[in-house]
Formats: sequence, structure tokens, C-alpha cells
Amino acid sequence: MISLNLVLAGLRLGLKNRQVGEKWVADDCSYLCKGLYNVDMRKKPILSNIKNIATTQFFNIQSMDVAFSNGEKRQYERLKPDGDGAVLVVPMLDDDTVLMIYEYSGGTHRYELALTKGKIDAGESPLEAANRELIEEIGYGAKKLSFVKTMTLAPGYQSNFTHIVLAQDLYEDSAQGDEPEPLEVVKHKLSDLEELVYNQDLTEARTIAALYMAKEIIKNQ
Amino acid sequence: MISLNLVLAGLRLGLKNRQVGEKWVADDCSYLCKGLYNVDMRKKPILSNIKNIATTQFFNIQSMDVAFSNGEKRQYERLKPDGDGAVLVVPMLDDDTVLMIYEYSGGTHRYELALTKGKIDAGESPLEAANRELIEEIGYGAKKLSFVKTMTLAPGYQSNFTHIVLAQDLYEDSAQGDEPEPLEVVKHKLSDLEELVYNQDLTEARTIAALYMAKEIIKNQ
Repeated sequence: MISLNLVLAGLRLGLKNRQVGEKWVADDCSYLCKGLYNVDMRKKPILSNIKNIATTQFFNIQSMDVAFSNGEKRQYERLKPDGDGAVLVVPMLDDDTVLMIYEYSGGTHRYELALTKGKIDAGESPLEAANRELIEEIGYGAKKLSFVKTMTLAPGYQSNFTHIVLAQDLYEDSAQGDEPEPLEVVKHKLSDLEELVYNQDLTEARTIAALYMAKEIIKNQ
Repeated sequence: MISLNLVLAGLRLGLKNRQVGEKWVADDCSYLCKGLYNVDMRKKPILSNIKNIATTQFFNIQSMDVAFSNGEKRQYERLKPDGDGAVLVVPMLDDDTVLMIYEYSGGTHRYELALTKGKIDAGESPLEAANRELIEEIGYGAKKLSFVKTMTLAPGYQSNFTHIVLAQDLYEDSAQGDEPEPLEVVKHKLSDLEELVYNQDLTEARTIAALYMAKEIIKNQ
């Protein structure tokens, strides 16, 4: 892929004005074609005047001037938190049984059914943060921790990343976290995932995506 | 389920202090047991002193005092946007081919591979918003629009909802949206989803979750 990109970067010199309409449909099955589209169309806008316009205890909002390669200019805002992002953990008690939690969620003022998650502390790796959160929130550590995927929530206006971690070979362990009340831990079956995703207590997109990916990984192990 | 909850609400009167430790593991396969846990443990905290502490062009941040049923008190902050939420659309050109877009995303300063999405305008239903966004962003409308699921992004600190919509029986149509530059539309195959989710251009959790759910719905149609 690296060598293909080099070839395409070279080809780019001879290619101008390939856009013929407002809408493009590139077929990703055609890798050469896709590469050419990439080169022409994904030229990042230039950012300037980036400044913090509101900072609270938990949030930091930036505004920035965005100059697109076609000359259009816009002002964007984004959430730009400090830190190294968050982890979300899929803890498997066995190859089918996942441990989930009900946790009070201030944004929706509901108890949401979700996977264990938390911010990565300074100096921690994502896998270390995953194991710490598991021990604090569900009373288990994991002997086997595997990185699955880094996801975003709303990349249009949020800069933060969530690293999805699959936790297997669990062992009992516990530590005091910063939760205001004990979390309710519930077992669910990945073999029932097709029904589980319609549970109205389960709404968090990260959790749904992580469960599907974990199920496929375990199936292929 | 309603009648079961009524029974459980009655049973609750005779049940006190059922928590024996910091951690609970309820088996959701045992519905009676689950109901009892629900009644005891998911007593929503009381919110007070809710106020807007920062308002910008795109964001509104609230703070609130949260008093948990165990006596713990915390101060929370949350993003509380106006409006009726957003839609995210899975547009199927045929039963296997999904139309995705590359769009510049200010939060990550990257071109992200994702599904068409946008805010619901005043007076619009989610399905109407879905069709409008499709026409503006990918040059197709849909004769068949199906509600899939309402998802949250980070319910701990965000109040907004995204309604996932499956769009089928597409027809060509276009309208000018508010995009600063034309979007690049790319085809992907749901039959390749197991590989697609590892594409590093695809990070948005809502999009990944929606693709898995759409694939299962279409399989069962």
C-alpha cells in the first residue's frame, strides 16, 4: 500500500481538475481509481486562529478558521479535551458471556447498559487503563488484554479517541474506583447479540460496535 | 413486561438491604431476579441547580448537582444541545452495496470514512431528515426508509441522540446542502464488513454499529 501511494503521488503531478460534478462515486473495489480520487479530493483544509473559547471543569471548546482547498472558508468549533483518550473494555467471563454494567449517565439522566470504560490516566498505556477500570468497576482483572480498534464518537466536532480492548482470562480482583455508587454488573451472551442490540437500555454506539467486533474476534480465535 | 414490573414493584415492599457487597452480578437470563435488582439499584439520583455555564455558537454546557440515592453528591457537567437530535443513514444501493462518504472532520482534522448524517431540522421527522441528508450528501433519495435504533455517543456527558435509519430502494436526486466542499462517495460491501471495520479511515462508532445492524436486518428481510 505504501508503494502504491508513492506511485499515485507521482501520478498526481500529471492530473488536474478531475472533478466533473458536485457528486463523485468512487468504487473502492478499484484500488487504482480510489487512490487517484484520494489524491485529488482529500487535501486537508488549512486551520488558523485556533483558540480556546470556553473552558469548564470537564470541557474545553476550541474555535478555528477552516480554509478548504476549494477556497471555501468556515468557522468550526470542537471539543478538545486534555489527556490520552479513553478505553472501553469487552470483558469475557467465557467465550460467550460478556460482563456489562448499568451506570447512571448524567447526559441522558438514565441508567445505561454499557461496557466498562474510563479515561486513561497519565503514564498509563491503554491496556493498563483497561485492566484498572475492570478491577475498579466489575471486580475482575484480565490475564489477556487485546487491542481491538480505536474509535471516535463524533469526529466532526470531538477530538477524543476511545480505544476498544478485549479482556479474556479474567481473575477476581477489586479496587476502589471513583464511582459515586456501586455499579450493577450484568451478564449477557454474545450469542444473543442480535436481540441484545435492540434492548432499549443499551444505546451507546461504542458499546454496540465493540460487542460486534469482539464477537467476530472470538469466533476466529 | 409491564405486568411483571407491577408485580416486582409490589414485591419490593418486602425487600430491603439486598446488597451484600460492593459488586453485584445479576444474570439477565433470570428475569425475576433481574427485575428485583432493577427496583433496588436503579433509583435515579435527584438533580438540582441545573444551569448553563458556557454557551458558544455550536455548544451548550450545563452543570448540575447530582444527589445519589446512597447519599453521595457530585457535580456533573454535560453537553445539552438544542434540537431534536441527529440521523445517521445506511443507504443501500443493493442488498450488499452501501454508499459511504469521506468528509472532512474538524474534531480529528482528518477525512473520515463514515455514513451520511446530519441534524434533524425543526418540524422534520427522523425519516424526513434522513432522506433530505441523503439527497444533499450522496445524490440519492430512498423509497424505503426504516428506523433501526436510537443511539447515544457518550451518555455520561452528552444528551444528544442519533437515530439510525436504513435507506433502501434508492433513486437519483440531488439538492444543495451546507457542505463546504463536495463529498466523496464510496461504495463498500456489507459482505466485506469484517475487514472494513479495521479500515483506519473508518473510526466513527455510530457508523460501525449501524453497519452491523443494517447487515443483520437485510439478512433477515
